Amino acid sequence: MTTPAPRSTPASPAHLGRPAPVIATGHSPHARLRPVGIGDVRFADRFWQPRRERLRAVTLGSQFDQLEHTGRLDNFLRAAGRFDGPFQGRYFNDSDVYKWVEAACWTLAGAGVDDPALRRLVDETVATIAAAQGDDGYLNTYFTFEREGERWSNLKDHHELYCAGHLFQAAVAHHRATGETTLLGVATRFAALIESVFGPGGRPGTCGHPEIEMGLVELGRETGEPRWVALAGHLLDMRGREPTALTPGYGLDSAPPDYFQDHAPVREQRAVTGHAVRALYLYAGMTDCHLETGDLGLGEAALALWDEFQARQAYVTGGAGAHHRLESFGDPYELPNGRAYAETCAAIAHVMWAWRLLTLTGEARFAGAMETALHNGVLSGLSLDGECYFYVNPLADEGEHRRQPWFGTACCPPNIARLLASLPGYAASVSPEGLWLHLYVAGTIGATLPGGDPFTLHLDTDYPFDGVVAVTVLHPPRPETTLALRIPAWAGGATVTVNGEPVAGPARPESYVAIRRTWRAGDEVRLDLPMAVRPVTAHPRVEADRGCLALLRGPLVYCLEGCDHPGIDIRDVRVAAGDPWVPDSRPDLLGGVTTLRGRGTHVPAAGEPLYRPGGTPSSAGTPVELTAIPYALWANREAGPMRVWLPAGDG
Amino acid sequence: MTTPAPRSTPASPAHLGRPAPVIATGHSPHARLRPVGIGDVRFADRFWQPRRERLRAVTLGSQFDQLEHTGRLDNFLRAAGRFDGPFQGRYFNDSDVYKWVEAACWTLAGAGVDDPALRRLVDETVATIAAAQGDDGYLNTYFTFEREGERWSNLKDHHELYCAGHLFQAAVAHHRATGETTLLGVATRFAALIESVFGPGGRPGTCGHPEIEMGLVELGRETGEPRWVALAGHLLDMRGREPTALTPGYGLDSAPPDYFQDHAPVREQRAVTGHAVRALYLYAGMTDCHLETGDLGLGEAALALWDEFQARQAYVTGGAGAHHRLESFGDPYELPNGRAYAETCAAIAHVMWAWRLLTLTGEARFAGAMETALHNGVLSGLSLDGECYFYVNPLADEGEHRRQPWFGTACCPPNIARLLASLPGYAASVSPEGLWLHLYVAGTIGATLPGGDPFTLHLDTDYPFDGVVAVTVLHPPRPETTLALRIPAWAGGATVTVNGEPVAGPARPESYVAIRRTWRAGDEVRLDLPMAVRPVTAHPRVEADRGCLALLRGPLVYCLEGCDHPGIDIRDVRVAAGDPWVPDSRPDLLGGVTTLRGRGTHVPAAGEPLYRPGGTPSSAGTPVELTAIPYALWANREAGPMRVWLPAGDG
Repeated sequence: MTTPAPRSTPASPAHLGRPAPVIATGHSPHARLRPVGIGDVRFADRFWQPRRERLRAVTLGSQFDQLEHTGRLDNFLRAAGRFDGPFQGRYFNDSDVYKWVEAACWTLAGAGVDDPALRRLVDETVATIAAAQGDDGYLNTYFTFEREGERWSNLKDHHELYCAGHLFQAAVAHHRATGETTLLGVATRFAALIESVFGPGGRPGTCGHPEIEMGLVELGRETGEPRWVALAGHLLDMRGREPTALTPGYGLDSAPPDYFQDHAPVREQRAVTGHAVRALYLYAGMTDCHLETGDLGLGEAALALWDEFQARQAYVTGGAGAHHRLESFGDPYELPNGRAYAETCAAIAHVMWAWRLLTLTGEARFAGAMETALHNGVLSGLSLDGECYFYVNPLADEGEHRRQPWFGTACCPPNIARLLASLPGYAASVSPEGLWLHLYVAGTIGATLPGGDPFTLHLDTDYPFDGVVAVTVLHPPRPETTLALRIPAWAGGATVTVNGEPVAGPARPESYVAIRRTWRAGDEVRLDLPMAVRPVTAHPRVEADRGCLALLRGPLVYCLEGCDHPGIDIRDVRVAAGDPWVPDSRPDLLGGVTTLRGRGTHVPAAGEPLYRPGGTPSSAGTPVELTAIPYALWANREAGPMRVWLPAGDG
Repeated sequence: MTTPAPRSTPASPAHLGRPAPVIATGHSPHARLRPVGIGDVRFADRFWQPRRERLRAVTLGSQFDQLEHTGRLDNFLRAAGRFDGPFQGRYFNDSDVYKWVEAACWTLAGAGVDDPALRRLVDETVATIAAAQGDDGYLNTYFTFEREGERWSNLKDHHELYCAGHLFQAAVAHHRATGETTLLGVATRFAALIESVFGPGGRPGTCGHPEIEMGLVELGRETGEPRWVALAGHLLDMRGREPTALTPGYGLDSAPPDYFQDHAPVREQRAVTGHAVRALYLYAGMTDCHLETGDLGLGEAALALWDEFQARQAYVTGGAGAHHRLESFGDPYELPNGRAYAETCAAIAHVMWAWRLLTLTGEARFAGAMETALHNGVLSGLSLDGECYFYVNPLADEGEHRRQPWFGTACCPPNIARLLASLPGYAASVSPEGLWLHLYVAGTIGATLPGGDPFTLHLDTDYPFDGVVAVTVLHPPRPETTLALRIPAWAGGATVTVNGEPVAGPARPESYVAIRRTWRAGDEVRLDLPMAVRPVTAHPRVEADRGCLALLRGPLVYCLEGCDHPGIDIRDVRVAAGDPWVPDSRPDLLGGVTTLRGRGTHVPAAGEPLYRPGGTPSSAGTPVELTAIPYALWANREAGPMRVWLPAGDG
């Protein structure tokens, strides 16, 4: 057994919390950007930080209760010989425990967090996981005892490598957050077993549900052992072969090979297809491998798939996956609203993949997509009270879709928890040039530049509701250093000043404005991102959105919800394309939001015929006042219809 | 065994062919209208009659070849002990043979048909079917020999009663067309067995796939035995019970009870839901029962379901069934175009149900819906050459959906054959007042009025391409008699003259103009139905059609097809709501059609972003000439995209 050789340094006084980066690309040969640690960024805003605090104080506890009540922890105790009862739940349930551990560890790594009770819970859970591991390194509580003979018998459906991937990610988080190597040892022992069975020269095989690829690459980054990156690359290249390496038969009889992204070698894949979460995890894993190896086939495929995804398959909310059937992508431009699947995990995968491409390229378009998914399609997955979840995130509803406290297949709840816990790690990057700001969240960033210099900033902003960001230098680096500020694609007319002086050159939308200078404490950079309300139309081939507009402002997608419109059926509302919408700050509403107020026409249509000659409605309708709220916050009040896309036109 | 007591009279010289009505409501107590026979109407037009002639000369032969090659006929020979081999195909394959027999018999009943070879084929096939029947009357070739023990073991999935229903319909057609009682005897023996097992007082049970209800009622009409209508009513009332009468378990694990229309007692059903063909067959069977018994619960449910179907679930083509998944209806107003299922059999069921409600009420709205389904959603199911079929009839396509010569589940080909063969029987009705014309097809109608008087008319028209219909009385009835002419809903401004004199009173759209007089030979009625091109919009809640218009003219729905627009991607074409479309008669095209010619704007969109601020396209586009063809005829030339709904607007 190889003892892991940890690379990450322990927390030093320079850091606000644990330096722990989410994705440790600090030494990745092909990364343009280097990460900051989760603990290097302290959020103090009124949008994200209350949610993260609720995550720590409420969500993680309620999720742990669910893990206990549903037998997911008993399954580990059982495998460890400490619980006398049957396996409970489904064969992939271990992964939920791993994601919870990851979420808890990222939380513990957070700036200003001191939660001994949570730490104890993590320690106990990690100990339980470790005790469940077999002598040979195998760890999946379903395939233990009476099902031991089924191990590795059906990689397509059994999620064994998927669960292993989540174990690896949890182990890395645990090591980064606590400095402990217990779980990292468990992970490397299991990885070594997998390598001995399915590694180069071994049995052909790969997993029906991609995930292990990201986990292995990260394990490689954390341990400094290139073998795990090589194993990830090998498993990637097992896909799309004849005969398939996804042995043996299909469990889902009707699922075609593209459901598993097994229809073509990954380097040749150009269609964004099949199960959305599997696809996006796969593409993220391909990008991760490319970051380490520079493998051009993987990198080119990932970039082409990204372009296809953004041009024809992504919801305006950053959601992904049009079909309930097989939880899959639809045809190009097929983006139904009411029947959107848009699984919370797919939007999370969108963020994870976007982050890796941003790290690879330093291009603002990836940060923009990440921001969109995060503020809309991801965040809609969690209730305001932090205890209920959407699995499916439609863009239109009749009032029947409500968040649930848990699911039989519970991938989404701990997934959103781990993303929210690690979010500070996505706010900024460093590079040899300096510090890059991607997300604007009020608070403090205490980065360490690649040369070792610290660069500490304070951000004051009411983003995402206001586009003014005031950045104050608290602790400057000694040498001349670049501060790169992201200008979102929507921020035409953005301006940047340093100590009141305009920065030369255009603040081009979807780019980074790079301010290079020798910084002094007290220097103030002011970024003004105009947050006009943006009525957006979809590509003409998107049947579901034709003749409609969606309202966006800043990174937020808005929607109409029934409960803001008593006496009006919002499904019968039209808006006019040119009509103004006015932001209205409402500290009282939904934890404090800026709504959009505007006017529309209510044309009751319940009795109208299905088809009517000509384009003129039978009634001119009644003018009505409308209030749009951020999409992410719908379904937190009384049930009723919701619409993102609003029929538009003066007819 | 009861010997059938046939009611229908043999062909007399007064008839053009066999009098054979499709649905023999001549004595139904609650029918407003009485049928004419298939042989009473001789089509001589250039739209339907060439298709019917091709059906006789080509389609029936090629379908019989398929029945032979796929083992469907061998299965009967096997059951008869004359074929030594395994059962071939699926458990519902007998029904395809029955539908072919029905189609062939209706063809033989047609005016002017003399086809001894077809008659021989029918006789042989009927003899084979009869030989396959068990001594106890049981007849399903799948559940014979080694599977005899499975009989009646799973009514939900095994289609035994469904196949029986098609046998009954074939037997009735055979008797009406040939006067022979062989198959009618087979049918009544099997019906008696079913009655003894599942009749009142017997085992609770009904069929997962409605169909037998229509078959039993028709068997009752043909034999004069009320027990078959009573059995149909009993099987209807077995639905929606707790515990379900669809014993035992679900074969389709994920199919909910409404898939089988087993979610509520039929009298309480108001939502149009589940598998579309099953639903529409069920509603037709309910209407059939109501026609015989006056059972108000069934009649009220059928009329309410019709209203729901027309208001929220029917495609503009008369197609039905939004989802590929479970071949089912979608949510109200959920009518996707490219992913429409709209099975050919569902449009045929639409016609069958509409005809029964028309017979019940004499209301023009039912004839209008029947005409729409027939000319669009049904006819699209058959290729121009009469040898290939659509199972699925989308309203938009990218060029990949093509008609096939046969299907593993081959319900659609013989279904469209039996409808086309029997079509003359749907053209007119009689009632105590006189003769009703529903469909305008050039040719001769030789009806016998309920009082026994003949009423023979000649129709001269180029309908459905031209709205002028000249009706000449050839043989008038003696007493004063009404001639009722249907004014379609779209024919605002219609005029009617008799011998050049305008008929008093308005020719109100969606009504019958009743002309009552003592007719003389040579009297000429001229009906002028204005056939303006009608741009139609859909209900605002139909997401898929929002911002679009469809072009209709007369009973035809039009579409754009790629092959008429070289150099243009029709998916990028917009039309303006107010722009004119001009009919253009094209005898050279697609067997002779009237196209619509107009202008639009081609705005290439392939490179456009998925979401764009504002409503203005990046390019003003190029004016283009457009040619629309009847939807029913698409995919008869080279493959390419097709669109029924066209993005509209001047933006």
